[in-house]
Amino acid sequence: MNRAAIYHRPESEYAYLYTKNEMRVRLRTAKDDIQSITIVSGDPYDWHDGVWEKSADTIMTKALTTDTHQYWESSLTATHDRLNYGFVITDQQGHQIFYGDQGFENVYSPNQKNAGLMGANNYFKMPFFQEIDRFKAPNWVKKTIWYQIFPERFANGETNNDNINTLPWQSSDHPAADSFYGGDLRGIINHLDHLINLGITGLYLTPIFKAPSNHKYDTQDYFEIDPHFGTKSDFKELVNKAHTAGIRIMLDAVFNHIGDQSKQWQDVLQKGRQSKYANWFHIHDFPARYTPTDNFEYTANATYDTFAFTPHMPKLNTANPEVQDYLLSIATYWIKEFDIDAWRLDVANEVDHHFWKRFHTETTTLKPEFYILGEIWTSAQSWLQGDEFSGVMNYAFTGSIIDYFAKRTISPSEMINNLNTQLMLNRDQTNQVMFNLLDSHDAPRILSVAHENKDIVKQMYTFMFLQQGTPNIYYGSEYSMLGQQDPDNRKPMTWDLATQDTQMYHFLKQLIKLRHNYQPVLSEGSLSWKIKDDQHIVSFARKLGEVSLIAVFNNDEKDYPITNTDIQNVILQQNFAHNIIKPSGLIVYVVNK
Amino acid sequence: MNRAAIYHRPESEYAYLYTKNEMRVRLRTAKDDIQSITIVSGDPYDWHDGVWEKSADTIMTKALTTDTHQYWESSLTATHDRLNYGFVITDQQGHQIFYGDQGFENVYSPNQKNAGLMGANNYFKMPFFQEIDRFKAPNWVKKTIWYQIFPERFANGETNNDNINTLPWQSSDHPAADSFYGGDLRGIINHLDHLINLGITGLYLTPIFKAPSNHKYDTQDYFEIDPHFGTKSDFKELVNKAHTAGIRIMLDAVFNHIGDQSKQWQDVLQKGRQSKYANWFHIHDFPARYTPTDNFEYTANATYDTFAFTPHMPKLNTANPEVQDYLLSIATYWIKEFDIDAWRLDVANEVDHHFWKRFHTETTTLKPEFYILGEIWTSAQSWLQGDEFSGVMNYAFTGSIIDYFAKRTISPSEMINNLNTQLMLNRDQTNQVMFNLLDSHDAPRILSVAHENKDIVKQMYTFMFLQQGTPNIYYGSEYSMLGQQDPDNRKPMTWDLATQDTQMYHFLKQLIKLRHNYQPVLSEGSLSWKIKDDQHIVSFARKLGEVSLIAVFNNDEKDYPITNTDIQNVILQQNFAHNIIKPSGLIVYVVNK
Repeated sequence: MNRAAIYHRPESEYAYLYTKNEMRVRLRTAKDDIQSITIVSGDPYDWHDGVWEKSADTIMTKALTTDTHQYWESSLTATHDRLNYGFVITDQQGHQIFYGDQGFENVYSPNQKNAGLMGANNYFKMPFFQEIDRFKAPNWVKKTIWYQIFPERFANGETNNDNINTLPWQSSDHPAADSFYGGDLRGIINHLDHLINLGITGLYLTPIFKAPSNHKYDTQDYFEIDPHFGTKSDFKELVNKAHTAGIRIMLDAVFNHIGDQSKQWQDVLQKGRQSKYANWFHIHDFPARYTPTDNFEYTANATYDTFAFTPHMPKLNTANPEVQDYLLSIATYWIKEFDIDAWRLDVANEVDHHFWKRFHTETTTLKPEFYILGEIWTSAQSWLQGDEFSGVMNYAFTGSIIDYFAKRTISPSEMINNLNTQLMLNRDQTNQVMFNLLDSHDAPRILSVAHENKDIVKQMYTFMFLQQGTPNIYYGSEYSMLGQQDPDNRKPMTWDLATQDTQMYHFLKQLIKLRHNYQPVLSEGSLSWKIKDDQHIVSFARKLGEVSLIAVFNNDEKDYPITNTDIQNVILQQNFAHNIIKPSGLIVYVVNK
Repeated sequence: MNRAAIYHRPESEYAYLYTKNEMRVRLRTAKDDIQSITIVSGDPYDWHDGVWEKSADTIMTKALTTDTHQYWESSLTATHDRLNYGFVITDQQGHQIFYGDQGFENVYSPNQKNAGLMGANNYFKMPFFQEIDRFKAPNWVKKTIWYQIFPERFANGETNNDNINTLPWQSSDHPAADSFYGGDLRGIINHLDHLINLGITGLYLTPIFKAPSNHKYDTQDYFEIDPHFGTKSDFKELVNKAHTAGIRIMLDAVFNHIGDQSKQWQDVLQKGRQSKYANWFHIHDFPARYTPTDNFEYTANATYDTFAFTPHMPKLNTANPEVQDYLLSIATYWIKEFDIDAWRLDVANEVDHHFWKRFHTETTTLKPEFYILGEIWTSAQSWLQGDEFSGVMNYAFTGSIIDYFAKRTISPSEMINNLNTQLMLNRDQTNQVMFNLLDSHDAPRILSVAHENKDIVKQMYTFMFLQQGTPNIYYGSEYSMLGQQDPDNRKPMTWDLATQDTQMYHFLKQLIKLRHNYQPVLSEGSLSWKIKDDQHIVSFARKLGEVSLIAVFNNDEKDYPITNTDIQNVILQQNFAHNIIKPSGLIVYVVNK
């Protein structure tokens, strides 16, 4: 038995309340090493005649697998809302061992009711089923199809508020880093019907507050809508109309840093150490200064902490209670006054946990079903314990999907290894509200990534829409817009009918409908993979109760014939005919049993 | 390479700030599997020409070992207070692999400066060195020698406040569960000189608030000193005199449950659902009721949640903000009015994390160097992240020490496996303030556990005093008092000179002095073991800078000759002469180099 590979951590994604009364338990072992696992559990206070008595044996289920590991899962309940639990592990050779809070012990007689297997202190504990500590995701999020808009580039609905440097819409194939095209809130309001027709139920806007740049991540005033984007009244109208249409609104909170044009930073530049904002930042030497370089966004020697090496984005000192109060007043203002439903948090991992815990408390106190989405590109466990974020932008997922389908640098089993590894970092309810995406304002457009192969793009969208997390479409990708790394991925939206890819639009619309129809299975259903590395075939099933959705993707150069009689109930297909999935084709079918 | 055994978790005890500028990193691998590990690290934003550049290679040190694992450690710093880091792991056969945030990748050219080893997103991140999130232990605790008093049994200083049922001091060899002997605060004040002479610097009192029982874990009024224990003025005098003598005071907070004689529970019994305290508890059916059994502390069918199955200790609903405010008003009252230094938290793991986070904030805001000690008998990682407890009562440690030295049910290497496993669950600064103990009001007295063998007791005390955590002596054990499981371990203190074991007293006094003299080495020094299973010899070294303390314990039936010339500098010994450690003997010596 590979004992060194066995891992469990109480009160984590390995042992958590899924609902008020259901505890879910995971255990990790080496792949192919273990035959079966039984959880021995009972009330921690069930002592009789000096011996602790277990009350149940629960056989664990094999769950996801990675290159190195097999994960096992189980559900437990408890009469008195508290549990001792430990694992009796049997390997392929039949050797048995007990694994508990204080390590491994031999199992002398595993079937004795008196689980004096071990001293009761060698059991793991769920000391009490604390509903208040349970990770609770807002319920609407898993039903949501997101659409991300970069407001300066979606639609110019009001030319009177345009920046004086505004260029004609789509006047260049490749926008520069400092171009303006006049997109604004009125433009979004005018095109809400586009989102409604597509089936969108969540709208994520990158920053809309007053800021010099076109992207507005260099906030000048968090309490004002950027005048080139419109007015507060426009924003109120947008929120109301969206809500009426069943679309939730998520804004972008840039709280790691502020723009250097903000009154706070300007005051620091003017008054130095005497500024009342001097402690709002991390300034190592006054006056705050830096040596400019050819690159507007780079300096090597700022005397203050910045976002990356960008002198124009001084980092905020969120450990200062004044800064916390200020940022929280912003976070709550836009909820209270405009009824927004979610904040997306920019550079979320570089802000301290203390601040995010206050943020979570204040926003969810105002609006219990509020969604908090962190921008974190790597694993994010320490923010996803239930008292900080609901989910994160799932770039780790994106990367693996792209590496397999578009770049073809990894095999099917490598992709699945990566995806399963990510899934096993989080609780089930967390995975259901992760923000899945193929592209964004920070990543090249998916059609460009796929070397303009639309079939592969459709495969990737289908693949993503059938995962647990909640899917996002980046504005314009529904019309097959192209774009490399930013600023090229921020081109003006194509409203010209002649340039719109209506096939892609209709494919995505169909996919959105599918996701809405089968949302419970897709959010909550189990996931099981079937892959054929040598044939480049990826298939998986999502199952909840009696309903299964099965998807098959052909990534090979050859046709892939399907013999399964279940496929009469195909609900989505591409490059599929006569029971043959052609290269870059796919089918999704339903089985009820 | 046993890849399945490799484990790291960012922002945990595997990756944390030790000081403001020093990050400590751990990695776990299978034992004897890996030859060397190099950490590749750099600033996350150090991109040049589209490629991320590492700035440092750090060779990891082999740290503690368990039966199954080798732990590796390193210290890292960062120019801009942020780091990407990943591990280049070389096994015994020379095979090399990169391990990062998104799993394993082959290392094509490990020495290239351009650590395009991997995409920068496959590095683990310490996104920012957040001083506010750092686990900060109060600095005085690691210098403290604790002494635990069960006040009803330490000394009766004032007979006028005695319970009418008070028995004459030591009138029975075995106190009953409901006996009273008249111990009180005046008794403690009168005997402060005893503690001072011994070298004690921290005093832990089990509950002193008004409650019917002798142990007072069934609190009736948290704002009153139990009248049989004395007055608030007595307590103030105790704190002041203790502080003057350099002794800190820790009280016992019983916040998981309240006593059934409290006004809150009595109100619930009287008014049922209409009581303003109805939501202070977890009541499943009104009226709150239960069927008594022969056992005062047991009922099978209470209609409300209780501590264990004790109907007289209804569990508090700490998710109710009113209850939180009430309990926090208690926690802060005794700090503000009486200047106590620490709270020991009873049944701490059964109270929710939300509450303990508020508790941490409110107590440390009042007194930044406040010590918060949880009673948790199993692993306690989720409470020891820096925003809840400083440490826990280290019963897991106690158990292994007893199993080896006193019960002899495990081998030296099994003990060390267990202790090292426990140490690797926590950050270094946490281990330094764990509350180490051999006995308590909840466990049999150590001399009884050791079958009255005083040499073995001295071995265990010495062993414990030389570990990182802060040691505790349970009142009377310094005079070799005996006692089985409670109530037998709560006998009246032996003040009769004829019954006091002055040899044990002087041995402990010597040990306390040793701990005070070598505190930095013992708190912060490295730990390395040298054991001989077949000879039952345990030896270890604690080292900080140029000072090493080395301890050798002979647990065999045979003499153990020491040949090391370093042993001229022996600072503590037992059953040692002519360079021979006799059975149950020990030496501690110092090496400076």
